[in-house]
Amino acid sequence: MATAHHPYVPQDLVLPGFVPNVLPYEAILGVFFGCSALVVIFMFVLTGRFKYLGTVERLWAGWWMCTGLIHFVIEGNVVANSKFYQDTSGNILNEIWKEYTKADSRYATRDAFIVQMEGVTAFVWGPACFLIVYGILYRRAWRFTAMLLVSLGQLYGDVLYYLTCMHEGLTKHTRTEPLYFWGYFVGANAIWIVVPSLCILYCARNVNAAVAAAGKTSTKKSAQKRA
Amino acid sequence: MATAHHPYVPQDLVLPGFVPNVLPYEAILGVFFGCSALVVIFMFVLTGRFKYLGTVERLWAGWWMCTGLIHFVIEGNVVANSKFYQDTSGNILNEIWKEYTKADSRYATRDAFIVQMEGVTAFVWGPACFLIVYGILYRRAWRFTAMLLVSLGQLYGDVLYYLTCMHEGLTKHTRTEPLYFWGYFVGANAIWIVVPSLCILYCARNVNAAVAAAGKTSTKKSAQKRA
Repeated sequence: MATAHHPYVPQDLVLPGFVPNVLPYEAILGVFFGCSALVVIFMFVLTGRFKYLGTVERLWAGWWMCTGLIHFVIEGNVVANSKFYQDTSGNILNEIWKEYTKADSRYATRDAFIVQMEGVTAFVWGPACFLIVYGILYRRAWRFTAMLLVSLGQLYGDVLYYLTCMHEGLTKHTRTEPLYFWGYFVGANAIWIVVPSLCILYCARNVNAAVAAAGKTSTKKSAQKRA
Repeated sequence: MATAHHPYVPQDLVLPGFVPNVLPYEAILGVFFGCSALVVIFMFVLTGRFKYLGTVERLWAGWWMCTGLIHFVIEGNVVANSKFYQDTSGNILNEIWKEYTKADSRYATRDAFIVQMEGVTAFVWGPACFLIVYGILYRRAWRFTAMLLVSLGQLYGDVLYYLTCMHEGLTKHTRTEPLYFWGYFVGANAIWIVVPSLCILYCARNVNAAVAAAGKTSTKKSAQKRA
């Protein structure tokens, strides 16, 4: 098997059967961010049919559908397909990971934390995201609980992702060019720091208000009983 | 520096300056589980003064105080003190980790995931646990939100703890004697699978009921407005 030299760090990493990206990185990023935006827009338009939903709820439905698809389809692929870097077909799912691995070679070396954290993200948080979309659309009472749990899961996984990479030395697995370091490693992952934090705040406000109101009602009821 | 041979796996692991346990394991386990039980009992008795708290709430206050102290004091020590295995003083905090490392040598080798997950557990979840105790005692409206978030953090950290160890091969870091494998590695950690899961169920039931009630109230109000 002829092996092209890979563009990942450390340079002496051995990846038998490595095949370079077939698509240019502009095409890969275009497909990834273009499709993500399309999903959010599509969900926003579609949820217009649910007349009782506000704009904020419709945007959250878009986020959860988009992040669920990213978890289940894209991250699911890198978990299931440990030899993604040998793909010759130009399959976009493998092209994305061949490109992203420039920002973190632990995906190719099958680092224990990366593979297991991505496994939980793809196959537990992923399906849970779709359940949350349903919960938002039909205003199920459990929707805030589910959003709190999955958002914390995304946030904690991402914090550990950054911290474990820093622990081993930031440049050990990560190329230092701005596109790879600031764009992919810092920037792309920061989405799952910012949005889950906002979602936790959104849910906390709603839950805490409901719990406070329920507390007042039960206090009133027991006061009426005593009277 | 004379180095005794350590009792950890793999046997060829090099730990310069290793000093064997000063205390017998019965004493270490006795102190750990004895103190933990004392904290729960102490909190249960103390919270008897809060007449409006039910038995279940008083038990949860005990759990959160106990788990918070374990996170902050015991796990905090192993994060801050990377050379715990060199301790000659018989300090119980180092004795605990010298003993536990028989079930997982990644604490001595400063595995990236272990150190960072324990860091978040000790210094984020730890203080958050004490806040939760306050929230339960004074029935703050945010107590369920906080319990949901920290419980999911404990649960997810523990699931990744098991999964990363399995990923690298269960016997790579773990001694196979029943006390170490089933007692320490499986058993002790299972507490943070079982109790956080129960806490999530407890909070979800309360939160979902409050959200459902708030939804009915707001539906009634808007119906009254329309009428």
